[in-house]
Amino acid sequence: MSTVAAAYARIAEVDRPEVWVHLRPRADVEADVRAQDARAAAGADLPLLGRLLAVKDNIDVAGLPTTAACPGIAWTPDVDATAVARLRAAGAVVLGKTNLDQFATGLVGTRSPYGAVRAAGHPDRISGGSSSGSAVAVALGIVDLALGTDTAGSGRVPAALNGVIGVKPTSGLIPTTGVLPACRSLDCVSVLARDLPLATLAVDLMAGPDGVDALARAVPAGADVAAPAEPVLAVPRAADLDALDPLWRAAFDHQVAVLRDAGWTVREIDLTPFLAAARLLYDGAFVAERYAAVGTLVDADPAGLDPVVAGIIRAAGTLPAHRYAADLVTLAELRLVAETALGDADALLLPTTTHHPTLAEVAAAPVAVNSRLGTYTNFCNLFGYAAVAVPVDAGVPGERVGVTVLTRAFADAAAADLAGRVLALAGPEAWAVLDAPAVAVPA
Amino acid sequence: MSTVAAAYARIAEVDRPEVWVHLRPRADVEADVRAQDARAAAGADLPLLGRLLAVKDNIDVAGLPTTAACPGIAWTPDVDATAVARLRAAGAVVLGKTNLDQFATGLVGTRSPYGAVRAAGHPDRISGGSSSGSAVAVALGIVDLALGTDTAGSGRVPAALNGVIGVKPTSGLIPTTGVLPACRSLDCVSVLARDLPLATLAVDLMAGPDGVDALARAVPAGADVAAPAEPVLAVPRAADLDALDPLWRAAFDHQVAVLRDAGWTVREIDLTPFLAAARLLYDGAFVAERYAAVGTLVDADPAGLDPVVAGIIRAAGTLPAHRYAADLVTLAELRLVAETALGDADALLLPTTTHHPTLAEVAAAPVAVNSRLGTYTNFCNLFGYAAVAVPVDAGVPGERVGVTVLTRAFADAAAADLAGRVLALAGPEAWAVLDAPAVAVPA
Repeated sequence: MSTVAAAYARIAEVDRPEVWVHLRPRADVEADVRAQDARAAAGADLPLLGRLLAVKDNIDVAGLPTTAACPGIAWTPDVDATAVARLRAAGAVVLGKTNLDQFATGLVGTRSPYGAVRAAGHPDRISGGSSSGSAVAVALGIVDLALGTDTAGSGRVPAALNGVIGVKPTSGLIPTTGVLPACRSLDCVSVLARDLPLATLAVDLMAGPDGVDALARAVPAGADVAAPAEPVLAVPRAADLDALDPLWRAAFDHQVAVLRDAGWTVREIDLTPFLAAARLLYDGAFVAERYAAVGTLVDADPAGLDPVVAGIIRAAGTLPAHRYAADLVTLAELRLVAETALGDADALLLPTTTHHPTLAEVAAAPVAVNSRLGTYTNFCNLFGYAAVAVPVDAGVPGERVGVTVLTRAFADAAAADLAGRVLALAGPEAWAVLDAPAVAVPA
Repeated sequence: MSTVAAAYARIAEVDRPEVWVHLRPRADVEADVRAQDARAAAGADLPLLGRLLAVKDNIDVAGLPTTAACPGIAWTPDVDATAVARLRAAGAVVLGKTNLDQFATGLVGTRSPYGAVRAAGHPDRISGGSSSGSAVAVALGIVDLALGTDTAGSGRVPAALNGVIGVKPTSGLIPTTGVLPACRSLDCVSVLARDLPLATLAVDLMAGPDGVDALARAVPAGADVAAPAEPVLAVPRAADLDALDPLWRAAFDHQVAVLRDAGWTVREIDLTPFLAAARLLYDGAFVAERYAAVGTLVDADPAGLDPVVAGIIRAAGTLPAHRYAADLVTLAELRLVAETALGDADALLLPTTTHHPTLAEVAAAPVAVNSRLGTYTNFCNLFGYAAVAVPVDAGVPGERVGVTVLTRAFADAAAADLAGRVLALAGPEAWAVLDAPAVAVPA
């Protein structure tokens, strides 16, 4: 069976219509595959030849509608987002646009008129978000690769809750041209995949200023190097792990023990400045960036507006500028304290999220559960860090949890390097789960 | 006559009481001089030994009240600002605290209950501000060196209007610990002096993170190098110089012609993105930083509040955060366009300010005149640039104007290098004026 045929067969088999906002007609996808094959035959170097790509629906794909999960604002762009264009240039073929928490506002995957996205392996639980459809499309083996976005953890939380890899590069590394902003200064394009080398290859292909995104940044000379053979890893002290449920706590502690046994230098640090920065994102004034991004759209009351999302964005429109200014200073101060806490550590290892809630739990407390899920992700983009979220063994059959390796800005290669070593040490149980998604991929 | 005796004699002679908010008792200054002499005798390396320093009164000096020209908020700090501590450690002795536009909010030098500061050479005209007293204390030969601050041009405009040198280092180069913020993200400590090497020495002595100011930045490796022997200089196209009065326009055109004659490559650029960024500072939401900094103080209606300053700061408290967020994005976009306009230019040469208004003109239109004065300065700190303002020949006896050499962040050495070359080419008339302030310094 061809790759495309397998993908559509898989889509039919898994019966998860909520994964897609727009699935392309099979004939269109096959035409694109033929075009890429022709380019390869003509001698083009296409490192992503044969790879199927899903794109979160807040990222433009030329000729397909962009909705950001709000049908009332749909428009059809003429050009690809820079990230999409670069992956297509490398041979990838877009299968469709995936569901998300509306306007990328959420970590749950349920805030969408296109349906609450269910976790790949546990349909009674949430997929996590906001890159919900992208994570599930990857986890269920429909596509090789998916683009997400990550502002507060939207690329990492769904990776963790669906047992796949989520790479959130250094802020500014991948231009966001053609991405509908969530919080413009914090938004990152992220990658979801089942395979870490493929994910980092995709990031490398998308990296570098495009002359349009004013917040895109070139990698400083000498910044992007692998981690040392004997890394120093910072981990939270025990008191800073109280947000975890027992399964996630035990798994994280086990993971740290595995790394210690493997000879890593593990150093407990006080996570206070990181957690305080995380709280600034929604309890402070940074959320005003959401109103700056889509407030005008929300104020027009478009069809399909999610009430929770609309409430967050409208409230964000009332915050005063002097508070935002003060929060910027507070953030810089917290970053300085955090930097001191990190010291000479090569990376920080954190649980990616706190627990895996059910759809019912989120429906009962949509904001509180969402906030808890972001405990260990929200600070990352405020600090400009790179992050790689990987699935690890939870020690319980059918369960996996996630940990994230975080590094300072532009140390993306070190983060990927260390994440790969964490994966390699995570044990055969974890690898077995990773190789065979909870719903098996057909041959 | 000792240096200290000469300074107090000069203070009496010039009869400019409005220069000072707090002049130290002569005995205290003499005691400090003896202490520095003792340190030198004991072998300490004191590059500023024998130098008298004036400090703008929004910068803490231990044991002296800080007022920021608002007597109702006065407090007496226990410790020096980092900048002051570093100059004292190098041998400098503080003579007193100088007047300023209240809360460093102004470019005129008249917004202070301690009196409108008159220009050193033209007592009917403004000194410029907000570092008004510091600039005049230097220009009148009372001190060797003065500290100012510069957010929108407060260290450069008074340099230009009093015929002295004003160095505004790269944003973050000198920690602002112990400086009352004006716009926290934009504030820079600046130096005023009659001698460029002394000014740059002082900057070098104050540079480098202090572990407290979270916005302080270390110089990236390899960034701080001198300009090439045959520099490429960007200058505004003619249409972008319309804000200048005829004297300033003719002098700037002459200055550019002198540099061309000296073999410099001079390239006219479109100043639109620079001027648009400048307008963002007050017409946009960045002014909200002023409310974040001192809004609580102003709201308490302290004694001596300047009505123009209070009006600006109170209005700044009403701006919405989403507008500030949007302005940050607009700024980044303008900086990208500006970067393209600069291209391979080593520096940008601009008129420091637009004209030299009288006290009466400012009284009649306090906000409009102030805005015009900032036309060519306001963008600089928003872009993070380094700037060195130097006096040059105006071609009219008794007049001098100012030009500023601006470079990208951390190219401070190149800015100083080029500014020194501009000074050397400015002609004997200018140097004669520079050597002999309009009111002669006693021997």
